[in-house]
Amino acid sequence: MAPTSLTARFQQSVTPASLRAYLAEFISTFFYVFAVVGSAMASRKLLPDAAADPSSLVIVAIANAFALSSAVYIAANASGGHVNPAVTFGMAVGGHINVPTALFYWISQLLASVMASIFLKVTTVGQHVPTFTIAEEMTGFGASLLEGVMTFGLVYTVYAAGDPRRSSLGAIGPVAVGLMAGANVLAAGPFSGGSMNPACAFGSAVIAGKFKNQAVYWVGPLIGASVAGLLYDNVVFPAQAPDSVRRGVSEGVGV
Amino acid sequence: MAPTSLTARFQQSVTPASLRAYLAEFISTFFYVFAVVGSAMASRKLLPDAAADPSSLVIVAIANAFALSSAVYIAANASGGHVNPAVTFGMAVGGHINVPTALFYWISQLLASVMASIFLKVTTVGQHVPTFTIAEEMTGFGASLLEGVMTFGLVYTVYAAGDPRRSSLGAIGPVAVGLMAGANVLAAGPFSGGSMNPACAFGSAVIAGKFKNQAVYWVGPLIGASVAGLLYDNVVFPAQAPDSVRRGVSEGVGV
Amino acid sequence: MAPTSLTARFQQSVTPASLRAYLAEFISTFFYVFAVVGSAMASRKLLPDAAADPSSLVIVAIANAFALSSAVYIAANASGGHVNPAVTFGMAVGGHINVPTALFYWISQLLASVMASIFLKVTTVGQHVPTFTIAEEMTGFGASLLEGVMTFGLVYTVYAAGDPRRSSLGAIGPVAVGLMAGANVLAAGPFSGGSMNPACAFGSAVIAGKFKNQAVYWVGPLIGASVAGLLYDNVVFPAQAPDSVRRGVSEGVGV
Amino acid sequence: MAPTSLTARFQQSVTPASLRAYLAEFISTFFYVFAVVGSAMASRKLLPDAAADPSSLVIVAIANAFALSSAVYIAANASGGHVNPAVTFGMAVGGHINVPTALFYWISQLLASVMASIFLKVTTVGQHVPTFTIAEEMTGFGASLLEGVMTFGLVYTVYAAGDPRRSSLGAIGPVAVGLMAGANVLAAGPFSGGSMNPACAFGSAVIAGKFKNQAVYWVGPLIGASVAGLLYDNVVFPAQAPDSVRRGVSEGVGV
Repeated sequence: MAPTSLTARFQQSVTPASLRAYLAEFISTFFYVFAVVGSAMASRKLLPDAAADPSSLVIVAIANAFALSSAVYIAANASGGHVNPAVTFGMAVGGHINVPTALFYWISQLLASVMASIFLKVTTVGQHVPTFTIAEEMTGFGASLLEGVMTFGLVYTVYAAGDPRRSSLGAIGPVAVGLMAGANVLAAGPFSGGSMNPACAFGSAVIAGKFKNQAVYWVGPLIGASVAGLLYDNVVFPAQAPDSVRRGVSEGVGV
Repeated sequence: MAPTSLTARFQQSVTPASLRAYLAEFISTFFYVFAVVGSAMASRKLLPDAAADPSSLVIVAIANAFALSSAVYIAANASGGHVNPAVTFGMAVGGHINVPTALFYWISQLLASVMASIFLKVTTVGQHVPTFTIAEEMTGFGASLLEGVMTFGLVYTVYAAGDPRRSSLGAIGPVAVGLMAGANVLAAGPFSGGSMNPACAFGSAVIAGKFKNQAVYWVGPLIGASVAGLLYDNVVFPAQAPDSVRRGVSEGVGV
Repeated sequence: MAPTSLTARFQQSVTPASLRAYLAEFISTFFYVFAVVGSAMASRKLLPDAAADPSSLVIVAIANAFALSSAVYIAANASGGHVNPAVTFGMAVGGHINVPTALFYWISQLLASVMASIFLKVTTVGQHVPTFTIAEEMTGFGASLLEGVMTFGLVYTVYAAGDPRRSSLGAIGPVAVGLMAGANVLAAGPFSGGSMNPACAFGSAVIAGKFKNQAVYWVGPLIGASVAGLLYDNVVFPAQAPDSVRRGVSEGVGV
Repeated sequence: MAPTSLTARFQQSVTPASLRAYLAEFISTFFYVFAVVGSAMASRKLLPDAAADPSSLVIVAIANAFALSSAVYIAANASGGHVNPAVTFGMAVGGHINVPTALFYWISQLLASVMASIFLKVTTVGQHVPTFTIAEEMTGFGASLLEGVMTFGLVYTVYAAGDPRRSSLGAIGPVAVGLMAGANVLAAGPFSGGSMNPACAFGSAVIAGKFKNQAVYWVGPLIGASVAGLLYDNVVFPAQAPDSVRRGVSEGVGV
């Protein structure tokens, strides 16, 4: 909390613990994007017109819930299990992670998403990589609002899951995060795509070369994430313990 | 437990902790209704005749289970995670929350449900908001009975999840509540609608302007919830510890 | 463990704690059967030929997994959460519950199953109550074998979930039991029906008046349950602590 | 860690605790393979062309997630809950299990898989036992890569689930493992089959008599598992505590 020079803060971001955190974010985000984008590809392989089939929505939503639960779980003790640039942004706004560290988290997450999309494209021999799209009748603003509100719910759950005051409920935190994501996909999948994750939307867009409506998956989620973090910490569960007891961004990651 | 004037009890209901509890109920109920009503809208967008499709039942039931688990989870330490006027009613009947506080819980829950329904209607550009309906051949009494019995199961599970005598089993309480709701939706969705939640039925009815059979989603659930609370506390798990140790409605919410 | 007269053992079975256990079994089994039979009825209402539809298998299997998890959860501290005559039989064979108490458990479970089936028939205005059936090409012996092996898996999981030596893993015991049941239904539903629960098969058969192949759902499961209990206690996890520390059948239920 | 003769190490592998571990692996792997192969058979019985139906992918993926969660759960305290030769290989490479013990684990797992496949074929009266296959357009190398990366994710999760430094998160370890497997199946099922488990692929191949592409399900997974183990232990979560505190392979199994 003391004023530190940019260099000093940057040095905090390249400790061995921080480097491990970036690797943990890379691995978790890779498997999350692999499952989300891969499950959409799998549906389309089974049914070319899968985007309009209810079973396909079940496939993508369950893949999202299952993959996010386990991705958050495996990264929990190393990086806090963000797996999502919006979560990292929300954590930075709330002061739980410093800005240079957050930037490295973003790089890890975006790189992982691009790599997962390339990997899927290569191993499936050039199968089409689907991108997140919004329903024809919707406006970009409406879709951003929808993605923003859903990301609010997701980041609020991440804050709750990492709150050490919850005692035994902490054990199922990663599952609660995954279930919130899955429920939101079931509600909004056919409307705004149900991304809630700029990295996921970015990676598939890079490989498919389609950046239409990309802003929808950045603006809404980043705003929603910030509001969630500020509301959780300052209004609904105001902190009384010092910041450093917060679980998740533990093991020496610079705060 | 001492006789207190109505004013004193009302004052207990406007403490900072209580206000935080109302906000927590609002947020959790918003995301629960968003997922339940949104998933029904998503199914109908994919398949206009979705109400008659088994995949659609899977979508709505999983959305219900996932969303309720995470909604209860994120509100657990602030408001007890009711997310449902019937649960609040059952808690009030059992003496775990005082009546003025319960009224504010109801207001938060109903407001959240209406807001979630408006939000869905606006962002999806006027998509039809579906309401809970009962099967043609069923009577209102039969549907109330069905909703009442299912709400009994749900509130009984909420009581079990918040029981401090369950030690380590408390950790998965929110998930148990969500799974009970999901199982009930799978059984009764095509018959009585599978609401178990007056707020959820009310919010979508307000936006759609259809109040037919609304009583079904209030009378049955409120009676079922009361019976569940009384049976749990007095017959199956009679209290031996003083009331105040009860987990869930902790952190100074007036009892 | 001392030789007690039948009268004395019977008296152990009518203590207040025992009566609470029977009520807990009744409530849990009611909601389990309600979800299993109800979800099959819901599928058929949506799609008359649902028995031959993959979505219908998903509905019934998820209902089974979700309902059993929550049913075991809510009964855990009162009756041990058997919810199944085969589990009670396996516990009696292993000496974890005495025979008169086990008989009262059976009565509660069978009564609950019949009541749940009647309740579904009445509230849905005479909808057909489906019974468990085996595939045409299968023999009764093959189906018994299938049901028996699956019940072995289920009861083995119940033993593991109630084992106090598992420390923190005990928290998710009820969920592990439900997931095992759901996985088995997905594998064997279209072949032997996937009951693993004599009460569930009995209740729907009573209401439908069809007792064909009823033996399949009793003989296999009871044998499978016994073998599971004996193998768990004596071979895979031999007891070293005295019997009374076993969790689940706690709170004074006669052993 | 001291140099021991092969005989001595072999003797460590035939202690009563080790024999119990092999039996636990047999039981868990039997029920896992039963659910995975059985659910594929169930889909095909319902819909002959099920391989091309999205509902069928949901059935197989959920069966995988549910069965693996419960299979890991029930074996956790006896054998560590590998349920997969690739996991055992990854544990052996990381030094958490000695080579002779690992060989007996493999034998138990492969035997269990063959037995489960025979059992399914016999009880379903000669129903066709499906084998894992890769999509027509894919190369064996691409499929191996896909299976290898997914197995990396699975084994990394197994390492995380068994890590005693995770405190309360350990409670949901088996569920996290199952959810990772289920998510991967949803992504890669229609491409490489989504096995991640050489035993599962081997057992069904033996009964069906089709060993085409069998190498895909061995080479990729074994390499992926080794990399996961080494990366977890040495890079992301470097050990500071002595090896023996590792949970999972406890109760005297030779290390």
